[in-house]
Amino acid sequence: MPQPKTRVVILGAGFAGLEAAKILKRAPVEITLIDRHNYHCFQPLLYQVATAALSPADIAWPVRHILRSQENATVFMAEVIGIDGEARVVKTRAGAFPFDFLVIAIGAMHSYFGHENWAAVAPGLKWIEDATRIRRSILSAFEQAELTGDDAERKRLLTFVIIGGGPTGVEMAGAIAEVARETLARDFRRIDPRTARIVLIEAGPRLLPNFTEQHSSYARDTLTAMGVDVMSSSPVLQCDERGVDLADRRIEAGSVIWAAGIMASPAAQWLSAEHDRAGRVVVRPDLSLQGFNDIFVIGDTASVKDASGRPVPGLASAAKQMGNYVGKLIAARVAGQSLPPFRYRHQGTLATIGRRTAVVELGHIQLRGFIGWIFWSAVHIYFLIGLKNRFVVAITWLWSYVTFKRGARLITEVPTVPAE
Amino acid sequence: MPQPKTRVVILGAGFAGLEAAKILKRAPVEITLIDRHNYHCFQPLLYQVATAALSPADIAWPVRHILRSQENATVFMAEVIGIDGEARVVKTRAGAFPFDFLVIAIGAMHSYFGHENWAAVAPGLKWIEDATRIRRSILSAFEQAELTGDDAERKRLLTFVIIGGGPTGVEMAGAIAEVARETLARDFRRIDPRTARIVLIEAGPRLLPNFTEQHSSYARDTLTAMGVDVMSSSPVLQCDERGVDLADRRIEAGSVIWAAGIMASPAAQWLSAEHDRAGRVVVRPDLSLQGFNDIFVIGDTASVKDASGRPVPGLASAAKQMGNYVGKLIAARVAGQSLPPFRYRHQGTLATIGRRTAVVELGHIQLRGFIGWIFWSAVHIYFLIGLKNRFVVAITWLWSYVTFKRGARLITEVPTVPAE
Repeated sequence: MPQPKTRVVILGAGFAGLEAAKILKRAPVEITLIDRHNYHCFQPLLYQVATAALSPADIAWPVRHILRSQENATVFMAEVIGIDGEARVVKTRAGAFPFDFLVIAIGAMHSYFGHENWAAVAPGLKWIEDATRIRRSILSAFEQAELTGDDAERKRLLTFVIIGGGPTGVEMAGAIAEVARETLARDFRRIDPRTARIVLIEAGPRLLPNFTEQHSSYARDTLTAMGVDVMSSSPVLQCDERGVDLADRRIEAGSVIWAAGIMASPAAQWLSAEHDRAGRVVVRPDLSLQGFNDIFVIGDTASVKDASGRPVPGLASAAKQMGNYVGKLIAARVAGQSLPPFRYRHQGTLATIGRRTAVVELGHIQLRGFIGWIFWSAVHIYFLIGLKNRFVVAITWLWSYVTFKRGARLITEVPTVPAE
Repeated sequence: MPQPKTRVVILGAGFAGLEAAKILKRAPVEITLIDRHNYHCFQPLLYQVATAALSPADIAWPVRHILRSQENATVFMAEVIGIDGEARVVKTRAGAFPFDFLVIAIGAMHSYFGHENWAAVAPGLKWIEDATRIRRSILSAFEQAELTGDDAERKRLLTFVIIGGGPTGVEMAGAIAEVARETLARDFRRIDPRTARIVLIEAGPRLLPNFTEQHSSYARDTLTAMGVDVMSSSPVLQCDERGVDLADRRIEAGSVIWAAGIMASPAAQWLSAEHDRAGRVVVRPDLSLQGFNDIFVIGDTASVKDASGRPVPGLASAAKQMGNYVGKLIAARVAGQSLPPFRYRHQGTLATIGRRTAVVELGHIQLRGFIGWIFWSAVHIYFLIGLKNRFVVAITWLWSYVTFKRGARLITEVPTVPAE
C-alpha cells in the first residue's frame, strides 16, 4: 500500500501563495490552495481598473486555470474562519482541511489607524471590488456634476482627494488627473472636466518615502505640472461623506480614496501569534511560526527582516521570493533535507506618474521620465500571467497612449436610489 | 435675439434612442438624452459576458463618449420617475426637463408572467449587472460542486436550467455547454465539469419560434449533439432556489436562468396610455402617442405593426429603424415638413448555437452551421461601435475560438456569506 502523501495547505492565491504552490509542482505532496476569491489579482495594476483604463479580467485570472496542469494541486474557493495549529486543521465555511504543512499567505487589508468607520467614505484599493467601486465613484462624480445646478456642489463633486503619498496614491492621483484633463475633456456640455481639482495628501514630509529624495521631488514636480495639488506633512484628522479635515483647513470633496495604510489579514488572531504594529505575524528566519515548525507565514501577512535588519517591504517581488523559499523548504523537508534561512534580495521599486512618466530604482540603476515608463510597462507586461492577457493589456495600453481614451468607463451596479 | 431652439428630449440610450439622437445631428434642435446608466449596452452579446467570454467593457460604451462630437446633444445619467404629457415635462430624480418633442425608448424588462418572485431565483439577461450576476452564479456552482462531499448536492449544483427557447435561451444553453465541456474540462480535481447537465426548457412546441421549422429542428439537433437536454412543450409551473417544477417532473438545479419573457418598461403607466398585453405602448402610424403629436414611443417600448399587420419584432435592427424614422420626422417637422408613416423593413434574424454554429434568415438567404457562424460574427463585429472595441472583440473571439479559453472568468462581488 502506498504511503499517503504529505498534505500541504496554502491559504491565499496572491503572489506568495501561488509561487509556493508552483515551486512544489514536482514534489511528492498533495497541495490544497484555498482562497476566498476564484481569481489571482495582479494588484500593481488595480489602479488602472479604478481609473477605467483596464477591465477586471485584464488583470485577474482564475486560480484553478493557472494551476490546471499542475496535477498535485487542488484549488478551492472558500473562506477561512480559523486555524487549529495543534490539531493541524484549517477551518473554512465549507469544511475542515487537515494539513502536514501550512502556508499562510492571505495578504493585507486596509488600515484606517483606528478610524475604521472611514472605510465607508474612503475606499482603499486591494481587490477587484474596490477598484470597480472607486471607478463608479469617480465617474459618477462627473455625471452628478453635469446634472447639478448648484455651483458649490459642482465644485465639491469635482474635487478628488487621495490620502496617502506612496506608489498607489501617486499612481491614482496621476491617473485621475489624466481622466479629467484628457479622457473626459470633451465629453460634457455643462461642466469642464479639466477644472476638476485633484488633491494628494501625505501625512509625512514627502511623497514616495521609500524612494530617494530626488525621486520624491521629481514625483511632486511632475504631479504638480499635471495639475495635482500635492499637500505633504498634512495628516488627515477626519473623513466624512462630504470631504476631509486637515489641521488647518477643510477640503470639500466628492470622492475620497484611501491609499494610506494597510494591516495584515487576521492570521495573527487565528493563531494567537506574536505580531507587529500592523498585525503582521513575527516569523523565524525560515519564515515558520514560533512553536510550529510546519506552519509558515509569508507575503504581506508576515513581519520579516532583511540581512541588515530592515523590514522586508510589501512588494510583489518580496512575496514571490518568500513563496519560492517556503516551497523549496517544504520540498527539502519532505526529502529529509534542510535549507539555510530565508534571505531577501531587493530587486527594486517602481512607480508610475501618469501616462508616460515613472520612477524606477534598481540598485545602482535609476530611471525616470519616459524611459522609466517604458521600463515600467515592459516589466509589468512581462509579469502578467497568460499570453492572452499580456497581449490584450499591451494593445489596450498602446491604444490608451495613442488616443488618451479609456475603454472601461462603465458605472455598473448603480446603487439603488431611495424613492423621493 | 435668436429664437430658442426646439428642445428634443430622448429617454433611453439603447439602439432606438441613440439612433434618433444621431439622426438629429444636423437639425437645429437641442437634444437631451437621458439614461439611468452611463453606457450604451450591445445587448445581442450580453450572453457572452454571462458566460465569461467577454468583459462588460467589450460590449458597452459611455453614451457621452459616443456623442462627444455631436455638439447639439447633452447626455445626462438620471432616473426618470414620470412624464407630464400636458405640461411637456419629464420628471427625473435629478430635476425636471421640459420638452418640445419627446422620444421614449426605454426598452423592456423581464416578465415572469405574474410570478415576479421568480426574479430572485431565475435572473434574466437585459443589463450588464444581470450578465455579471449570471456569470457569478454559473462559475460559483462549479466551485461549490468541487467543495461539497454530498453526491446529490453536487449533481444539483451541476445542473443548469435555462427557461425559454428563443435566441437568448439557445445561445445561453450552447455557451454553458461549451464552458462545461471545453473551457473548464481540465480545471477541477474532484468533479468532472463535462458531466454537468444543461437543460433548455421551452413552453411552446419548438425552439426559435420566429425561425423556420427547419432551423428550429437544426437548433434542437445541434444542441442535443452538444449535450444539452432540450425539453419543448414544457411550461414551467414553479421556480424556487433549488430547481424548477414542470407538469410531469421536478428538476433540481443549482442555476436557473430566465430567457422566457419580456415586458415593456413603465412608459405606458407614466402616460396612462393604451398598451398591449406585454405593456408596450400602442402608437399611431408615425409612432406618436394617441393624443400627443409630439410624443413618440419607439423600440421595445412600442407596439407597432408592419405593412402586413404583423407585430414588429423586438430586434436591434427594428429599434434602429424606428429611431431613424422618428429622428427624421422631428427634423422634418422642425423644418415645417412632414413624412409618410413608418414602414418596417425586416432585415433578418440570427442566432448562434455554440462556438461555431449559427442560423441566419435574411429573406431568401438562409445560412446555417459554420458559414452561418462566420456571417453572424461578421455582422456583430461590424455593428459594434468604436474601433477599439471592434478590434478587441475580434481578437478575443479569435483567441476563444482557437483555444476554447474564456478570459473573463471572475466571480466578483462575492455575496457576503452569513456567519455560521
